[in-house]
Amino acid sequence: MIYLTRRATFSASHYYWNPSWSAEKNEQVFGRCANRNGHGHNYTLEVTVAGDVDPVTGFVVDLKWLRDVIEREVLAAWDHRHLNLDVPEFAATESTATIPTTENLAIAAWKRLEPSVHKADGARLSRVRVYETPEIFAEFRGEA
Amino acid sequence: MIYLTRRATFSASHYYWNPSWSAEKNEQVFGRCANRNGHGHNYTLEVTVAGDVDPVTGFVVDLKWLRDVIEREVLAAWDHRHLNLDVPEFAATESTATIPTTENLAIAAWKRLEPSVHKADGARLSRVRVYETPEIFAEFRGEA
Amino acid sequence: MIYLTRRATFSASHYYWNPSWSAEKNEQVFGRCANRNGHGHNYTLEVTVAGDVDPVTGFVVDLKWLRDVIEREVLAAWDHRHLNLDVPEFAATESTATIPTTENLAIAAWKRLEPSVHKADGARLSRVRVYETPEIFAEFRGEA
Amino acid sequence: MIYLTRRATFSASHYYWNPSWSAEKNEQVFGRCANRNGHGHNYTLEVTVAGDVDPVTGFVVDLKWLRDVIEREVLAAWDHRHLNLDVPEFAATESTATIPTTENLAIAAWKRLEPSVHKADGARLSRVRVYETPEIFAEFRGEA
Amino acid sequence: MIYLTRRATFSASHYYWNPSWSAEKNEQVFGRCANRNGHGHNYTLEVTVAGDVDPVTGFVVDLKWLRDVIEREVLAAWDHRHLNLDVPEFAATESTATIPTTENLAIAAWKRLEPSVHKADGARLSRVRVYETPEIFAEFRGEA
Amino acid sequence: MIYLTRRATFSASHYYWNPSWSAEKNEQVFGRCANRNGHGHNYTLEVTVAGDVDPVTGFVVDLKWLRDVIEREVLAAWDHRHLNLDVPEFAATESTATIPTTENLAIAAWKRLEPSVHKADGARLSRVRVYETPEIFAEFRGEA
Repeated sequence: MIYLTRRATFSASHYYWNPSWSAEKNEQVFGRCANRNGHGHNYTLEVTVAGDVDPVTGFVVDLKWLRDVIEREVLAAWDHRHLNLDVPEFAATESTATIPTTENLAIAAWKRLEPSVHKADGARLSRVRVYETPEIFAEFRGEA
Repeated sequence: MIYLTRRATFSASHYYWNPSWSAEKNEQVFGRCANRNGHGHNYTLEVTVAGDVDPVTGFVVDLKWLRDVIEREVLAAWDHRHLNLDVPEFAATESTATIPTTENLAIAAWKRLEPSVHKADGARLSRVRVYETPEIFAEFRGEA
Repeated sequence: MIYLTRRATFSASHYYWNPSWSAEKNEQVFGRCANRNGHGHNYTLEVTVAGDVDPVTGFVVDLKWLRDVIEREVLAAWDHRHLNLDVPEFAATESTATIPTTENLAIAAWKRLEPSVHKADGARLSRVRVYETPEIFAEFRGEA
Repeated sequence: MIYLTRRATFSASHYYWNPSWSAEKNEQVFGRCANRNGHGHNYTLEVTVAGDVDPVTGFVVDLKWLRDVIEREVLAAWDHRHLNLDVPEFAATESTATIPTTENLAIAAWKRLEPSVHKADGARLSRVRVYETPEIFAEFRGEA
Repeated sequence: MIYLTRRATFSASHYYWNPSWSAEKNEQVFGRCANRNGHGHNYTLEVTVAGDVDPVTGFVVDLKWLRDVIEREVLAAWDHRHLNLDVPEFAATESTATIPTTENLAIAAWKRLEPSVHKADGARLSRVRVYETPEIFAEFRGEA
Repeated sequence: MIYLTRRATFSASHYYWNPSWSAEKNEQVFGRCANRNGHGHNYTLEVTVAGDVDPVTGFVVDLKWLRDVIEREVLAAWDHRHLNLDVPEFAATESTATIPTTENLAIAAWKRLEPSVHKADGARLSRVRVYETPEIFAEFRGEA
């Protein structure tokens, strides 16, 4: 059993806002992150798959395939976008929207990646980590 | 003569848009950066002052003072903001706005910092560098 | 279940010395680290909490709260200090002192942080990692 | 129980080639990595040992000893070498050779390190991680 | 005048060998770098152009254009290659070959990039830096 | 003309204290850095030499030679030491001591390195940079 990880980066805007709260409460809880014009980050997405090494290729999965999965399933939708306005899982109708915190980005990336990795023979998605800055990151392992 | 540098980071949104162009031309020239909802970055600002070492303190300038100047003159206005919407030198009336590219951020940071550093005895602003990502940065040295 | 991590840095001095040994034995075992004048490091402290995401905020815990806990419980006591001389768990009376190795710093940081994190609803301290340099780090997960 | 990690770096060449395949198939599967003249990387090897802290030294294991084990068992054989041509586990007779992918490097490093760490009282090898670039790494934990 | 920099990475093999010397002298001078099977690195190439900011775009040069120039002029020829065997300026006939040291890579990258940058209106190539590892780099500024 | 740079790291303790001032004034000016027990850093020293490339070796200077010069002239005296207590240029008799700020470390490293580099044919010391943390660094170029 080997754990193979690939990193990718994307740049996106977001803000934190709970529409069921007043502006005052949003500013009190979320501080500068509540600015509705948005602010942004260079995010790093770290995707880990687990599986056995194929003796024919020496691969758990083909890293070019994994790069393409990450590009197609996550970066095409999130890179150079405003998460609250352009990305379905955070935009929707706002009253039911999920706030695009680092925690929720990790869960959303898992949901986007898991079906594609699941189809790859002998490998499973093991871990998704999202860095908002080098100092802050959230990790989801598919645990309920 | 010593060159003393302090780094700081800020997170901001921006987009690239020339209002005298059509939407098509903006998208052709600026690509994904033309998305009007904005996208964002973790910027790094690197400020270098030059001067002689004060034999009494061992300092060119006090780094706590330099940190406060950077915070007051640049970060208070730029951090967790949308550069095109919240920041005067890039917002103004849009038809005369400066596009918040990395190049223009370096020049704007210089203009914000230079008067304060100029007042410090025996030191001058030598260089301002802005990293948009670890792979892209612009540097301004006050040269015409 | 999400694992949320925040990093912080502190600068401190230390030396390695077992008072029940001769100077020769200390120098033989600890090498240059046995210099009683001390030497120092820029340490990085990485604190991970585990819990469910609150659907109202999108947070496992508020990262500003976590930053303040790290500042109050660890950095206020350790940053810009000499661990062997200024910090209670390593200074005490020397004959019973714990040597401030990276391993012991990780355990001591856990003990300082765990009570505060424990009180936070729905979150628990999952992991504490201390980097002495980018090449050396110790991790404690609360395991006996 | 503490997990103590030490990093080391080495520079090596390699290529990917399955001798039971045609040149066309090798190029199709392995792309630019199939260039038989080889290409190279600055690899980072991250070795984690787990154990209790010795109250006499404050160590899980002596980091100088761990550095020497890594140097003697792995770097002396791999650093500044061509993995496919100079290193026994990847060279052998080519028809039975293991392809030096990041995954197989992690397993091979584990096999080289585990006997030495196993002899150290109260510590065991917990994890070996190999970074081919900062964006790609493989991890082996000794799991079947 | 603004200095705009873009980084790129490539992975390549090389060895150091002066064909007019004996094997003993090559090993004495070049040490482990004289291994004729080669070893390799993840190189970082840092390209700086200088010029005025175009008020219409906010650019010194278009960074997508600069990325394409670097890809076409340098990376297409050097990435995933053996510098001594696959790259014209270091291979040639060996008796006249230039040794692919970091210094010579910086000069060779300058020669490959300068004609394309020179054609860009209002910009000139200012500096080329090549990192062999994070600890070693060479810089060429076009000075005789 | 090529600029060739090598980095090295060292860990040291220091404090800031002007003996002609009262304790109150020292604490007011130097803040937490005035703690007489000291605190410490992982410093990075970056040494740049300038010269022509020797066509026989492809070197400006031999990087192994440069590593040995840095080790012998600087690291042997500064690494794992207390700068105020163990290092001549900062210890001396205290009333005449130079305060070991990052600025003064850069000048002192230049003075230690310059005579050895000066003797190397065709190369001169061009720049010395000292990082106290990744956020703070001082650079000396030998300018009066």
